[in-house]
Amino acid sequence: VRATTHMTAHGGAAVGTAGLVAAAGSGQRLGQGPKAFVELAGRTLLEWAVGALAGHVDEIVVAVPAEHVELLERAMQSVRVVAGGATRQETVARMAAATSAGIVLVHDAARPFLDGATVRACLEAAREHRACTVAAAVADTILDIERGEVVDRRRLRAVQTPQCFERALLLEAHAAATADGVEATDDAALVRRLGRHVALVAGGPHLFKITTAIDLELARAYAERRPVAGSAA
Amino acid sequence: VRATTHMTAHGGAAVGTAGLVAAAGSGQRLGQGPKAFVELAGRTLLEWAVGALAGHVDEIVVAVPAEHVELLERAMQSVRVVAGGATRQETVARMAAATSAGIVLVHDAARPFLDGATVRACLEAAREHRACTVAAAVADTILDIERGEVVDRRRLRAVQTPQCFERALLLEAHAAATADGVEATDDAALVRRLGRHVALVAGGPHLFKITTAIDLELARAYAERRPVAGSAA
Repeated sequence: VRATTHMTAHGGAAVGTAGLVAAAGSGQRLGQGPKAFVELAGRTLLEWAVGALAGHVDEIVVAVPAEHVELLERAMQSVRVVAGGATRQETVARMAAATSAGIVLVHDAARPFLDGATVRACLEAAREHRACTVAAAVADTILDIERGEVVDRRRLRAVQTPQCFERALLLEAHAAATADGVEATDDAALVRRLGRHVALVAGGPHLFKITTAIDLELARAYAERRPVAGSAA
Repeated sequence: VRATTHMTAHGGAAVGTAGLVAAAGSGQRLGQGPKAFVELAGRTLLEWAVGALAGHVDEIVVAVPAEHVELLERAMQSVRVVAGGATRQETVARMAAATSAGIVLVHDAARPFLDGATVRACLEAAREHRACTVAAAVADTILDIERGEVVDRRRLRAVQTPQCFERALLLEAHAAATADGVEATDDAALVRRLGRHVALVAGGPHLFKITTAIDLELARAYAERRPVAGSAA
């Protein structure tokens, strides 16, 4: 990863790439406190995310619930810690504002099994296309209960994270969404709203999101059989 | 379960309910031979399915690749074995024709973690509504790549199995599909084509389908931590 070295508004050296870890969720559906601190095979979900990004990006920014920022700043010296916002969208905007990197990669801490090959593919796609998201084929038949009909799943993709953007484009998308009062569950949707193309990077079932207790149980079982995710592909 | 006892065309006593296990797939994407014989925590996927249904239905019919029918007939005396068709739809039609049960429950062997509570809920819903399918909320954001937009996932459900029907209705739906040259990935879709209501029974992530090698890895890890699925809820 080549870092750009011009001076930033804050006077520091700008970095080329930053990983933004959204870990400010309350974990309400999981019911085990803030999701970022849920333990999985000896590490918190936050540590899984930071571990998966370390070595791939120049800087890591994590957003956690406001009341935990101070403690985490002391505990995790290698990352920049910010307080999450009221929504995921606001949380990402805060992280994007906290870095001066040209390229930012947004990842949900609730998807612990991020691999290095996916991170590299996303950074590359963002350099080439300005915006990308990881997306996976949909295995189940999907029913539209409003229309009462099955949707052709060949035209569907499950949107996952990471999503990776030129930071300027991500900031522009967030500003437009805020101005228009739009809330989305992912950042690629906000970029698409601007009429910009978002490239798709092949994800997979290992990038599933931990939402419910059974998801966590699956993840724990899986984590204990699998080598710990890190910078290896 | 109350069995009806009128005589069938074959001269035998009719049974009330039958579990139809679709296990004739080639398992091409998994790459480990016929999927039904893939091992998961000491039992084949076929055994998982049969074990989950035993005690809940009056009869179990399994469809396997044609070349394995004879051996399985000898090995599994408690179930009726039929040869799968060229498509899943044809396979289900053959199983439905091989039983005289009034209510049939169709299940994919590729979804091993079927629990008794779900089986009971499906049988009950089929008695009340004539047709039902298990369906789960969609956790990921779903992108429609043809329209280039996100689909509101609140209106989407991931269709799973079991699906449970009055057998006469299922046969009617299959006959209509065959007459119209329609192929569907699930039987509820065929019933819906007739303009009939299909009730939804709450499924969940544990009913995920094993399609790829990583799905199998997840399932193995999960199976080894979880009590073996059986007739317990």
